Formats: sequence, C-alpha cells, structure tokens
Amino acid sequence: MGLETPGFHFSVTCAGIRQREHPDMALIVSDPPARWSGTFTRNRVKAAPVQIGMERLRKGVPLSVILVNSGNANACTGERGVRDAQLLCREAAHLLGVPENQVIMASTGVIGHPLPLKRMKSALPTLVRNLGQSSLADVAQAIMTTDRYPKWEIIPVQGYPEIWVAGVVKGAGMISPSMATMLGFFFTNAGMPLSALHPITHQAVMNSFNRIKVDGDQSTNDTVLVLDNGAAHEGTPENRLKGAISYTLEKIMRSLAWKIVDNGEGVTKVVTIVVETAKTEEEARRIAESVGNSPLVKTAFYGEDPNWGRIMAAIGYAGAEINPEDIDILFDDVTLASKGHGTGKLAEQRAADVMKRHDYTVRIILRQGSSSYRIITSDLSAEYVKINADYRS
Amino acid sequence: MGLETPGFHFSVTCAGIRQREHPDMALIVSDPPARWSGTFTRNRVKAAPVQIGMERLRKGVPLSVILVNSGNANACTGERGVRDAQLLCREAAHLLGVPENQVIMASTGVIGHPLPLKRMKSALPTLVRNLGQSSLADVAQAIMTTDRYPKWEIIPVQGYPEIWVAGVVKGAGMISPSMATMLGFFFTNAGMPLSALHPITHQAVMNSFNRIKVDGDQSTNDTVLVLDNGAAHEGTPENRLKGAISYTLEKIMRSLAWKIVDNGEGVTKVVTIVVETAKTEEEARRIAESVGNSPLVKTAFYGEDPNWGRIMAAIGYAGAEINPEDIDILFDDVTLASKGHGTGKLAEQRAADVMKRHDYTVRIILRQGSSSYRIITSDLSAEYVKINADYRS
Repeated sequence: MGLETPGFHFSVTCAGIRQREHPDMALIVSDPPARWSGTFTRNRVKAAPVQIGMERLRKGVPLSVILVNSGNANACTGERGVRDAQLLCREAAHLLGVPENQVIMASTGVIGHPLPLKRMKSALPTLVRNLGQSSLADVAQAIMTTDRYPKWEIIPVQGYPEIWVAGVVKGAGMISPSMATMLGFFFTNAGMPLSALHPITHQAVMNSFNRIKVDGDQSTNDTVLVLDNGAAHEGTPENRLKGAISYTLEKIMRSLAWKIVDNGEGVTKVVTIVVETAKTEEEARRIAESVGNSPLVKTAFYGEDPNWGRIMAAIGYAGAEINPEDIDILFDDVTLASKGHGTGKLAEQRAADVMKRHDYTVRIILRQGSSSYRIITSDLSAEYVKINADYRS
Repeated sequence: MGLETPGFHFSVTCAGIRQREHPDMALIVSDPPARWSGTFTRNRVKAAPVQIGMERLRKGVPLSVILVNSGNANACTGERGVRDAQLLCREAAHLLGVPENQVIMASTGVIGHPLPLKRMKSALPTLVRNLGQSSLADVAQAIMTTDRYPKWEIIPVQGYPEIWVAGVVKGAGMISPSMATMLGFFFTNAGMPLSALHPITHQAVMNSFNRIKVDGDQSTNDTVLVLDNGAAHEGTPENRLKGAISYTLEKIMRSLAWKIVDNGEGVTKVVTIVVETAKTEEEARRIAESVGNSPLVKTAFYGEDPNWGRIMAAIGYAGAEINPEDIDILFDDVTLASKGHGTGKLAEQRAADVMKRHDYTVRIILRQGSSSYRIITSDLSAEYVKINADYRS
C-alpha cells in the first residue's frame, strides 16, 4: 500500500460532495517536501484552486500536500471560492503539521457552485488518519468524474534502477489543447533541481496533454504537476540522467494522455492525426487541430465512413499554406486520397475496414516542407451528446 | 409560376445525381442579363464551380444563367472537375443562346466524386424546355440536401412598391462563419450599379450568413450571389433608395440565415448569442463564436440544462480581455449569473423554462466597453451525430 512510491503517501475518502458511496476526496502527501513544477489552464476564467496553486508555484516554496476533490470545480465562485480553498488548505496543514503555503488544492466537477465546505472539512481528519493506507490506484479512482477507468502508472527510469516516475490523471470531457478538464499528478525521486524540473515538465506536457482533443473546450481547472522529492543533486545533474528523466516523464505522460482520450466522454475511437511535410510546425499544428476538432470529421470517424472530403475541407479552412492537388490522405496503411484525388472504391472499402479498429492513424501529407505535428483525437458519438446533455441531471 | 420575380425564370428536374425521384438540378435564368455581386467560401479547398464563379465575378461580365445541382459538390475533383463544370456551362449556354461566360454553376453534396456528367448533360434540354414552369419555391426544394424544409422569400422594398427582393437558400450541415455549405441566390429589379451592389451585398452577408453556426466547419462550396437585372440608374442612385435596398436585402438574408440554422442537421434549438459591452467588436465576436461553437455549451442547450459555468468557461478561453467577476449571463429575461456568480436555484429553474422554448437569446454582458456582437447558433443533438455519421451510407 503506497510502497511503490516511497516518499509519497496517499489516502482517499468519500466526503459525499456529489453522491454518497463514491470516493471523492484524495490526500497526497510528499515527505520530505517536494520541489515541483507544473502547468495550469490558460483559460482566463481560472478556478479558485488554480489561482492559489499558480501563486504558490510562482513563489517557489516546496510542496507537501495536494488536496484533491471531484464533484465540484470551485470555479466561478469568486472570493468566496478562494477563501473556501484557503480554509481547507489551512486545515489540512494544521492537521498534518506542515506550513500552510506548502498545501494546495485541485478540484474538478460542476462549475458555479460553492464547495460543500462542512462535509469536506469533516472529511479531513479521516484523510489524515488513513494516510498511507491507499495506493496510487485508489487516488486514480477517487479523482475520476465521468472517466470510464482509473488511469495511473509507475515506471522505472531505464539505466537508473533506483529512480522511478509515477503518474495519476483524470480526464474525460472538455479535452482540448491547451490541456483539458484534466488533473495530472506526477511523482519522482529523481532529485532534479528546479532549473531542470521546469523545462522537463513543460516539454513533456507540450508533447502529451497539449496534443489531445475530445471536444475543443478548455476547462477552468486544468492542472498538471510534477513533484520531485529525491535528494537534490549537487549542482547540475549530468545530461544523461536529465535525458533519461525527461524521456521517462514524457513517456508516462503520453501514455496517460492517450488513455484520457480513450476515456473521453462517449469516445468509441481514438485517432492519431499526423500532418507531415508542412511548411512550418505551426502550420502542421493548425491543420492537425482543424481536422481533429471538426465535428463532421469526428462524426465520420464514429460512423466508420472513409469520407476524406470532410478531412480535405477541414485542411482547407485551417488557414495554412496548402495546395489541395499535392495532398495525400492515409488511414493507417491505406492511401485514400492521392494528390488531392480519391483513389477509388477499393481503397474506400479498405479504409472502412481500418476505421472498424478501436484506434488508428490518419496521415496527411502536404508536400510543402519538412515540418510535422501529431495530435490524438476521438470520434464524436451520440453517447457524447447524451452524457453531456445529462451531466447535471 | 415564376411571375413573382419578373425577369428571372426557373426550372427544376430530377437528373438522378444521388437518388431518383427527388429534383436535384435547377436552372436560373436572368433575362436581361444581371449585374451581380457575391461572396464565396474562404476555404482554401475550393470546389470547381466556385473557382469558375470567382473568376467570372472578378471579370465583371453580366450573369445570365446559374446551373445548380445537389448531391455532388464537384469538390476535390481537380482539373477534371473544372472541365466538367465548364462543359455543362458551355452546353447550357449553347441551349439557351447566351455567351458561355455568362453561365456559372453552383454545386453541393458529397466531396471527392466526379459529377455524373452524362446524366447531368441529358437533363439540360429538359431544364431549358421547362424554363418558366417552376417557381422560386420549386428551386428551393430542388437545391435542398439534408435541409428539413425549403427556404425562400420574396419581399417588396418599403417606399418603392415596384421594387422587390427575392432569395432562395439551402443550408443544413457545416454551417459556420464564414458561411456554410450553403448556397444562396438573391434576385432584385432594383437597378443598382455595381458600385452600390458590391458593398450592399458584402454588408448584408456579413450581418447574416457570416453570423450563423451549426458545427464550425467551413465548406468548399459556399456561394451567395445577388443578381440585379433592373434598368440601371443613370449615375449613382439616390441614398434613400440605396438604403432601402440595403435594408431589405439584409432583412431577407437574416431571415433566411435564421432558417438555415433552424434547418441545421439535427437542430432542436435556435439560440441567439449576444455579447454586449465588450472592449472591441472583434473581442465580442470572438466570445460569441467561442460560446456558440462550444460542444459542451451546445449539448447543454440540447439537454435544456442552464449550465452557465460552461458558458463562462467558453468565454474564458476566447482569448479576449474579460474579468469573470464583471460578467452577467441572461437567458431571455432571466439573469442566471450576475457579476460572475450564480443567482440561485430559482433563477436556474426559470432559465430551464426558457430553454424549453424552440428559440431564445443568451445575453453575455462583459462591462469592458461599448461594443457588441450577435450570432445565431444551435444545440448539438444526438440526431446531429446520427445524421452525419450516416451521411454517405
């Protein structure tokens, strides 16, 4: 129990924030306090816990405690929301005997309702008492909202058997660059100094959570944090170690990002969009996102319809330099359009077979330059609409 | 038959482009030839008929004939597509005895398949023979794809009883600024010179078809044309007449734009989004489009769920200057959020009642300046997904 991530301790409980009998609060404690880095939502409407977290991260004090809840986002709750979150942080700090500025919150759930403060406060002693009796898997379960399965991983760093990286995320709806209504907490004993931790974190997030799309909405609560409480290295860590950590963190983030899309509300297909030979990476990105965000393309994925014309149209309005007569579109190994033209009925049938798979890759070859970009998107299903139309009822 | 729009003559037929027993070709003839203006899709992937139309419009020659078909967009069909469209234009010109450069095509339907040239060519003599035997209502019917009802109007210009403006449109899926997979043809006997017709047309399109959203996709085929074959005025028309024409054209375009949203694939709600007191019109537009395009907001419209938090989140990621604590959100006359905070259960119940209506207005008050913007959007329903997943099957 919790032994897989020595130095990090967990507990979960059911505070009854949204419904009884489902754990909805989790306590994450780093002992010793961790150096930390992270990224928060770029939405201008930032939930109270995000405001507090951003401020503490900026100040550079170590992090001891993350108090997480599902069921209520504490967003659009004004000054009261900030006061409520501060009060819970203070209470947790008091119970755990750590400085208040080493405690942050992360919340997800419905927007615009104040936290059920009493219930959450009453749950704190239980959380503290049970610390260490829950595993990362329990945390993964407790922070879920409409996720279909818990998402967490612990992997060793190759070449450094004593070093490990672990992560736990929740995702589901509102998945879009930048980020998602997602929470992600990553842990390691690598002992990176902040000067290395920050760039490693940002690059890993950029190549993982910033490249997934379910519905194009950006949440008020997105938070990805990386906590490192290993013994700090003297001076700068050797490049080989830094590279290994960076590689491992990106690997685990990419794996969990894929699972977030796979867990997306009503998702039945996970589709990787790769745009190749674009003039610039920015243009490749714009096209990948235009295609990956098009409701018409996404419903065609759902309907298993190799409708490459919709993809071509979405390429066309991405605002990038293209020539339709130069473009190839492939579904896995099937070339569906070549130099802007359909390749015929047989190719359509073979592409329709590819589309029956749970996940596949759409490659778009532009012949404009040498840049590329890759994102992971999903289909748009009737189930997505049903889940989101009924979310609060 | 056709008498309501003297000088413009119509016929329709069933060429069997997509399925038998549904008219899928229409012939529109202006006699005398019309001065004309128009706007075409800004998608970089432009269908063959759009390429031809844009070139003829640029040259400024009068327009005698529009040959319209549904069932096949003639997009992503390369040089062959252009040759096919030119051939049909030439054939129609020949049969009607008008110069070839006074004939254009407008196509809508599936992308990436060549036109069924033989069938379409065989249909031309019938179309020419029956000219004048169809009404604008018949044209409205023939150019429909997944539209639910035909959309057309003829209205007199107030103060000028002898002048009228008429219009016919098709819309349905892929409705988004700029424009839609939409075709719109407008007719008048106003006798405006081109110097007046161009700005009047552009402004009317800007305030109507460029402000509707169903799914955020932009088509390869969008075309809105205004044909004026009235006796040209000597010199510049008086301002009062110009104003009356401008007003009437915008009025008819707005009315038909509303109907396009109401006809959108799987649409069950038509929602006007008004953003007020923004710093600039551009920021108001960005927020209106962000809200009107958010799948989470649109599914909440569908679910009749007064989830103003999703609206607030979509405001937040629009990339405009805002302060959440200054924002009011109203559903018709119900204030659901005031200065960034929910106004309580009773207001939510009253807003839920508003949302049971077929159409209503969401007002977003920013308190940042004095600019505003208005768009018309729809809900995102399970039916939308079903229609688009099955479109080609």
